[in-house]
Amino acid sequence: MGKKAFQKPKGTADLLPSDSLKWHYVEETARLLFSDYQYHEIRTPLFENYEIFSRSAGDTSDVVTKEMYDFYDKGNRHIALRPEGTAGVVRAYVENKLYAPEEVKPYKAFYIGPMFRYERPQAGRMRQFHQIGVEAFGSESPALDAEVIAMAVDFFQMLGLTDLKVAINSLGDATSRANYRQALIDYLEPHLTELSSDSQIRLYKNPLRVLDSKDEKDQALVANAPSILAYLTPDAKTRWEKLQAYLDALGLDYEIDSSMVRGLDYYNHTIFEIMTNMQELGRGWTTISGGGRYNGLVEALGGPKTSGIGFAIGLERLMLLLESVQAPLPEAEPIDFYVVNIGEETDIEALKLVQAIRSYGYSAERDYLDRKPKGQFKAADRLHARFVLTLGPDELEKQQINLKKLETGDEQKVELLKVYTALPDLVEMEKGVEN
Amino acid sequence: MGKKAFQKPKGTADLLPSDSLKWHYVEETARLLFSDYQYHEIRTPLFENYEIFSRSAGDTSDVVTKEMYDFYDKGNRHIALRPEGTAGVVRAYVENKLYAPEEVKPYKAFYIGPMFRYERPQAGRMRQFHQIGVEAFGSESPALDAEVIAMAVDFFQMLGLTDLKVAINSLGDATSRANYRQALIDYLEPHLTELSSDSQIRLYKNPLRVLDSKDEKDQALVANAPSILAYLTPDAKTRWEKLQAYLDALGLDYEIDSSMVRGLDYYNHTIFEIMTNMQELGRGWTTISGGGRYNGLVEALGGPKTSGIGFAIGLERLMLLLESVQAPLPEAEPIDFYVVNIGEETDIEALKLVQAIRSYGYSAERDYLDRKPKGQFKAADRLHARFVLTLGPDELEKQQINLKKLETGDEQKVELLKVYTALPDLVEMEKGVEN
Repeated sequence: MGKKAFQKPKGTADLLPSDSLKWHYVEETARLLFSDYQYHEIRTPLFENYEIFSRSAGDTSDVVTKEMYDFYDKGNRHIALRPEGTAGVVRAYVENKLYAPEEVKPYKAFYIGPMFRYERPQAGRMRQFHQIGVEAFGSESPALDAEVIAMAVDFFQMLGLTDLKVAINSLGDATSRANYRQALIDYLEPHLTELSSDSQIRLYKNPLRVLDSKDEKDQALVANAPSILAYLTPDAKTRWEKLQAYLDALGLDYEIDSSMVRGLDYYNHTIFEIMTNMQELGRGWTTISGGGRYNGLVEALGGPKTSGIGFAIGLERLMLLLESVQAPLPEAEPIDFYVVNIGEETDIEALKLVQAIRSYGYSAERDYLDRKPKGQFKAADRLHARFVLTLGPDELEKQQINLKKLETGDEQKVELLKVYTALPDLVEMEKGVEN
Repeated sequence: MGKKAFQKPKGTADLLPSDSLKWHYVEETARLLFSDYQYHEIRTPLFENYEIFSRSAGDTSDVVTKEMYDFYDKGNRHIALRPEGTAGVVRAYVENKLYAPEEVKPYKAFYIGPMFRYERPQAGRMRQFHQIGVEAFGSESPALDAEVIAMAVDFFQMLGLTDLKVAINSLGDATSRANYRQALIDYLEPHLTELSSDSQIRLYKNPLRVLDSKDEKDQALVANAPSILAYLTPDAKTRWEKLQAYLDALGLDYEIDSSMVRGLDYYNHTIFEIMTNMQELGRGWTTISGGGRYNGLVEALGGPKTSGIGFAIGLERLMLLLESVQAPLPEAEPIDFYVVNIGEETDIEALKLVQAIRSYGYSAERDYLDRKPKGQFKAADRLHARFVLTLGPDELEKQQINLKKLETGDEQKVELLKVYTALPDLVEMEKGVEN
């Protein structure tokens, strides 16, 4: 058989160390910040029973019908790689009875990890993609809505993003939506034949989705449609006004976008998007996070009536954005020590040395390719070593070693024993020289 | 439709916050330590083209034939969830040309993440399981073998494990194995009918696997079989002796187990297992990590002739072990501040307060359930809040707030403005009171 180059599956990526480092930094930033808000990490399986997704996203949604990686396992179970994070978290919330009286309320959780959708890959949209997401269960308070929005903004700001906008809307409660639904049908019906074929179908099934149409003619028609905000029940209206009062108090800039609907049918009351105007993601404002308040999901998966609120952030897009606006991201750290060993007889001592240095918590490297001293010094340079320790048969015999600080070129002989017993002092001494 | 409780798939787990915290600590420990050894994180996709695994693990291996989650995607590609981490890393090494002259050599990488095997679930063995693994490519030096073994031991020791043993063996090079293979057949052939049926088949296909048999009669026969160490070529023998010299120099306890073979056919020269005697994992010594040096994998996936060495650690078993030996693992941290708000009119101020506190980097929480002050104090207790700030209409009017340190019960009125502008001073002051 000839040699064939094997490739990663279409729509997936390898994150090499220089990228992993940056991803890890972003993930740890989320962990730290979310923990200040008392959101804690939950990890659910990467696949679930198919029904979890068909029940939560809806049997007829694009995600479930066209984009899911679903298959039958060797026990003939219909399972699917998770296309998003909320359904699994809701399933875990119910199955682990996290609504029980002894649990803290609201139950606040976040997740970080891969999701899978069979879509046409493009910049920032992969088949294996990654999300950071947040869910809070068991409180109806619009103060929680404000907190969740503030946390998302806080996260982006911590990463160094500046040109941010929050768009909010309310989908009200079921009554508000029923009233609005009829008003929307009444408004659009006279224009039925002008609508795109997709929207014609949606008009009676789920007219709010027509507001979301990407079709230009639909968008023109929709521009003058009645606003859902005019159809909110008094209770929904009070909540909506409170949300704005909270956001105002927090000094958060926001914009009301009454045509925003978002995909999931379970959303009600607050929905929101965080947008950025950074040119790197294309013309105009583009969404980098979206979320909202939902009812019904916990019940759909067998739990008690519980409302939830959450948002998700796509990591691929976020990383692209951070790179392109040159947000501060970590680079590979220079190595602390490189041990150059000259000749076979110092080989074992060199290994002992790097191990001893590492046991102090410093990073250290040596040669594993039988390179000549020149090649080893080159390797040390390339790793931007702070210090190079050089050990030849001579040094070994005298139990001394050469310590060189690459930045200054300062060199000195030190006792080998000192490296083993007092390395931090040696390094401190070198620092002293610096000052 | 009635309400049905949905469950996670068989052989998977939910990691709730108290567990995630511990897993994250173990993962971060690996990240820190491995970076001292100059191993950097690589992230490869969770699924690969099926051929990646059938080529690397072998078409006839149990993993490929019985245990793999393989399926056809919507584009009719035969893909599989990764059953182990090495194949994907090797594929990425080749596809990204990490063997190129400009890359650091050896190329050292680690991975942390989920793997998938359709096996019978049992304690510590899941269908979605997790591994931390390490690979180093492009050096034949047995000093690297010693480093890799030392790093694995170092990792376990950092986590607080003490009763550890390293078992090592050499499978030599191809010539050593061919010679040994014949010697083993010669020894076992007279006992052919006494062997288990599995071993009878293996005897001619891959006689070394007979050494690995779980069958008791096979094990008895194998006990007196010739040792592979007697068949090492001079070169393989020199490498084997060097490895031991390195391990001796590092003061690492090890044991030679010449009947150890390990599964993968690509292994050669050094193979090793890290074992623990901790009773919690069962009687006697059990393996908590295994690895070895391999040839041929990089070529099998289309790359240039390159040797590699690596090991993997199963996280499920490791976490079980750490819990059962009561190794130090992090617990949920107490919250810094809880803001109790009394009455509707302080609601907005309470939200501003928690946000201000969080912006200092402290963790903070408030009530989102319209609980009475008593219920809020209970919530603060339950979160082990260090400080409780209480705000009622009275305080708001006077622009003061009540600061209570729960541990001591000390209370004082402080200016509201101070919380916004000088919170760290207030907390320092409280610390001062303590001393």
